[in-house]
Amino acid sequence: MSKPLILVSNDDGITSPGIAKLVSLMKQLGEVMVVAPDSPQSGMGHAITVGDTLRLTENTIFRDVAAYECSGTPADCVKLAVNEILKRKPDLCVSGINHGSNSSINVIYSGTMSAAVEAGTQGIPSIGFSLLDYSLEANFDPVRKYVKQIAMQALENGTPEGVVLNVNFPKLPEKKLKGIKVCRQANAHWVENFDKRVNPLGRDYYWLTGEFVNEDQGEDTDEWALDNGYVSVVPVQFDLTAHHAIKDINSWDLK
Amino acid sequence: MSKPLILVSNDDGITSPGIAKLVSLMKQLGEVMVVAPDSPQSGMGHAITVGDTLRLTENTIFRDVAAYECSGTPADCVKLAVNEILKRKPDLCVSGINHGSNSSINVIYSGTMSAAVEAGTQGIPSIGFSLLDYSLEANFDPVRKYVKQIAMQALENGTPEGVVLNVNFPKLPEKKLKGIKVCRQANAHWVENFDKRVNPLGRDYYWLTGEFVNEDQGEDTDEWALDNGYVSVVPVQFDLTAHHAIKDINSWDLK
Repeated sequence: MSKPLILVSNDDGITSPGIAKLVSLMKQLGEVMVVAPDSPQSGMGHAITVGDTLRLTENTIFRDVAAYECSGTPADCVKLAVNEILKRKPDLCVSGINHGSNSSINVIYSGTMSAAVEAGTQGIPSIGFSLLDYSLEANFDPVRKYVKQIAMQALENGTPEGVVLNVNFPKLPEKKLKGIKVCRQANAHWVENFDKRVNPLGRDYYWLTGEFVNEDQGEDTDEWALDNGYVSVVPVQFDLTAHHAIKDINSWDLK
Repeated sequence: MSKPLILVSNDDGITSPGIAKLVSLMKQLGEVMVVAPDSPQSGMGHAITVGDTLRLTENTIFRDVAAYECSGTPADCVKLAVNEILKRKPDLCVSGINHGSNSSINVIYSGTMSAAVEAGTQGIPSIGFSLLDYSLEANFDPVRKYVKQIAMQALENGTPEGVVLNVNFPKLPEKKLKGIKVCRQANAHWVENFDKRVNPLGRDYYWLTGEFVNEDQGEDTDEWALDNGYVSVVPVQFDLTAHHAIKDINSWDLK
């Protein structure tokens, strides 16, 4: 049997330590191809490049692993990989390991997850991995076992149709990690608190800052799992239909 | 009773004809405030501006309606509006009218919908409106009645918690429009077909092009409604959890 083909991308850019760790782990499971942004793309959501050109350049950063850097977004990377570079559909797409959380509502802003979701729309089993540590010096060693295990299980079982996995790791030493919890996305949100400043020319400008507010008391959420030392795995779908709300809206006075 | 406060945004930029039409319609329903991007943001998904500054400038384009243009994404516009500009939480947020479709899978790439979703995460009833006509000369007159009707119903009834509306209009004369259908998102996807070219310096570059493939035969989808002359209304949620898949993933060999 031939080795599985694994596409690796991310949103922190091809030179980030998190993708280097992910590449080294995926090499143990199959043949790896990297297509990742040439610059950080955090907070890019599911952006794609419309009305502008894309560049794709071979990169030897991973030595024995074929890699390309792309001028576009994480979603662009996956589109180019699948349609221009790879000779066949990959067996798995993994994105990350992100430097920072993509749990709960952060999933909608996440470039890491947008690469995974893009692959999912193309029928490729896929997983986004994120560590709750924004530092460039983040230590990914404690989570190696879990990354491999989840990726192996996705290769073995496939993923349910229309579903990709959002995996987040608490920032803990390996011994403190209690295992994996399959969760729902916590019902949380951001309260913004813009930092307003004046530039040297006297014009106002803003930095986006905010506070994460989780009022969800459930013990089946990703936030609960992460707060309690577990790895959170949320199955995420890109059919955004709120099926339960169709009846409600049908009761409106619409002609 | 005081007039409802309505926030208007979009992703085509503050000078696009679609937002001018939406502003003129919302003025008939309440007090309007516009915060929209200073340049087109199509395909921006749910991007936010992280690691860069935002500018916000008053704009008199709508004469008797207060308006600001913002250097950021549609999601940034809503965050700034709600947290920096508006004195109280708006009663409704509307986004568009987009020049082009945001039906089915396009919802995940849509800047128009990201403004609506962002407002939704802040507990504001919200709606994205899109017309299936990419032209700058698109005629929005046939859909006036529907935009007003749906917005009025959202003001009157509120929207279910965690749900925003994705409204798309077929490109048809008013007489040919058959009415409104509340739908689910069709299970469709894009097959990319990159246009590869060589620049004057001999380097390759790509334009993203693609073909929309809808294999969903359901007559309860937005694509079916639009193909058959109906206005499609899809209730969209930002809890992306695939609840039905939790059991599946729990059957994996995860420790």
